[in-house]
Amino acid sequence: MTAKPSNIAVVAPANRFDPAIAQRVKALVAASYADRVALSVHPQCHLSAGHFAGDDDARTAAFVEVANDPSIDAVWFARGGYGSCRILEAALPQLGHEARRKTYLGYSDMGSLLGALYARGFQRVVHGPMPSDLARDGGEAAVRRALDYLSGDAAGLEPTAQSGAKCAAFNIKTLGELIGTPYLPDLTDHVLLLEEVAEYMYSIDRAFFHITSSPALRKVAGIKLGRCSQVPDNDPPFEKSEVEVAAYWCMRSGIAYLGRADIGHDADNKIVPFGAMLSS
Amino acid sequence: MTAKPSNIAVVAPANRFDPAIAQRVKALVAASYADRVALSVHPQCHLSAGHFAGDDDARTAAFVEVANDPSIDAVWFARGGYGSCRILEAALPQLGHEARRKTYLGYSDMGSLLGALYARGFQRVVHGPMPSDLARDGGEAAVRRALDYLSGDAAGLEPTAQSGAKCAAFNIKTLGELIGTPYLPDLTDHVLLLEEVAEYMYSIDRAFFHITSSPALRKVAGIKLGRCSQVPDNDPPFEKSEVEVAAYWCMRSGIAYLGRADIGHDADNKIVPFGAMLSS
Repeated sequence: MTAKPSNIAVVAPANRFDPAIAQRVKALVAASYADRVALSVHPQCHLSAGHFAGDDDARTAAFVEVANDPSIDAVWFARGGYGSCRILEAALPQLGHEARRKTYLGYSDMGSLLGALYARGFQRVVHGPMPSDLARDGGEAAVRRALDYLSGDAAGLEPTAQSGAKCAAFNIKTLGELIGTPYLPDLTDHVLLLEEVAEYMYSIDRAFFHITSSPALRKVAGIKLGRCSQVPDNDPPFEKSEVEVAAYWCMRSGIAYLGRADIGHDADNKIVPFGAMLSS
Repeated sequence: MTAKPSNIAVVAPANRFDPAIAQRVKALVAASYADRVALSVHPQCHLSAGHFAGDDDARTAAFVEVANDPSIDAVWFARGGYGSCRILEAALPQLGHEARRKTYLGYSDMGSLLGALYARGFQRVVHGPMPSDLARDGGEAAVRRALDYLSGDAAGLEPTAQSGAKCAAFNIKTLGELIGTPYLPDLTDHVLLLEEVAEYMYSIDRAFFHITSSPALRKVAGIKLGRCSQVPDNDPPFEKSEVEVAAYWCMRSGIAYLGRADIGHDADNKIVPFGAMLSS
């Protein structure tokens, strides 16, 4: 707990954020965090343009606006889905000095942005729960974990991050689609925490081929596997678990497999600051 | 038509090849190609180890055996599915001089192998129908197209390849998972033909972000889009067609979008030799 209230701005670089959930998050902040948190939900969150929360220009503008706003301490991404990669090339060159001093918190599809910011030397890039997680079973605990972290309480850190190890956390497919692009950060000597949702096991296996065959990623200190949930049935059956898949590719590639990580697309998803742990 | 019969060996680096389909392919060869083709189906094709046509060692050994066999003119991959990436690291160092003079024909998951062989300077790497295509509606035409090509008849070439342009053809996801690895070939100045099956449109969009954001692939002469079939419904609806997606990312990245290609997961799938067109 800190004396200084944290100004948190919510934007949605991918899919539209349900206004009803936004109201519930605001009510939670008013009831339990009024002394520590000032939360603003950018109107862009509720725009709709086909699949997205507004078109690429609208999502870019809202993200750049809050990132460069000196009165904002943290950018909290509303939800995942798909679309943050579409604003990278336009948004990144517009980020100024103010953007570098604030915290960016999210996961899943937001990994495109988190990875790209970290690649450019941003130091407060953080994997963790998002406002939309309030809609999950037990989701209030996830949202409180994020709000606690953003207001100075490190209790929700994932154990590897808690240990002080240099970490980075990604959705497997989202990381895969950064490989070989200018948006992949240097993860040398990082413990890489990986999680997935709603992907076939053969596809998770192929993504591990990709990640562990990349010379850039063979420089990590090791891989920890978060939860792989809602895996559809494979035809023919894949007959290997996600742990077998991760351990196999680590063995093949000479990367240390370091066991399980406490992250995933669920209410238990813990917080992983990228890099060496910083106070928030 | 050539006077020299072509010795064709079928192996299955991914999923098991149905013996009943294999029999039908053999019968087709006996009835129509006996003077031009000698076809052998390697027993490995019918092995079963979980998801795969035998374990990684068995699939590696069969592929290396036929690739290095001086009596074989062409390696014809039985079918796709998933798994050829799993044998790359073990198989490639075992390929000798004989392996370089023969033709390799397949598509879909076989793109991992085709790409990796092309990256190592193999000159007869070819995208085109596989024996398992006989099971498709109208599939006999696809299998005949491949057999005609392997016995010296170039009528089944895709129009861009027919024009003499330097080409390469890939399944979108399979190419994506080579980016940033040692298995991605140099596609500078190639027309890149891309097709997909059974992937969400958001996922095709993200793959186009990946491909067109890769500096290595921004060197292609242009992209032609093959068919994207069996696209599952997106929630929320994606509201962009595959042509809009491909053209958008080409525009964003400065890659020329060159229109449609006559390839896909179907019986009309045409033949694309990698590189400048060679006689078969």
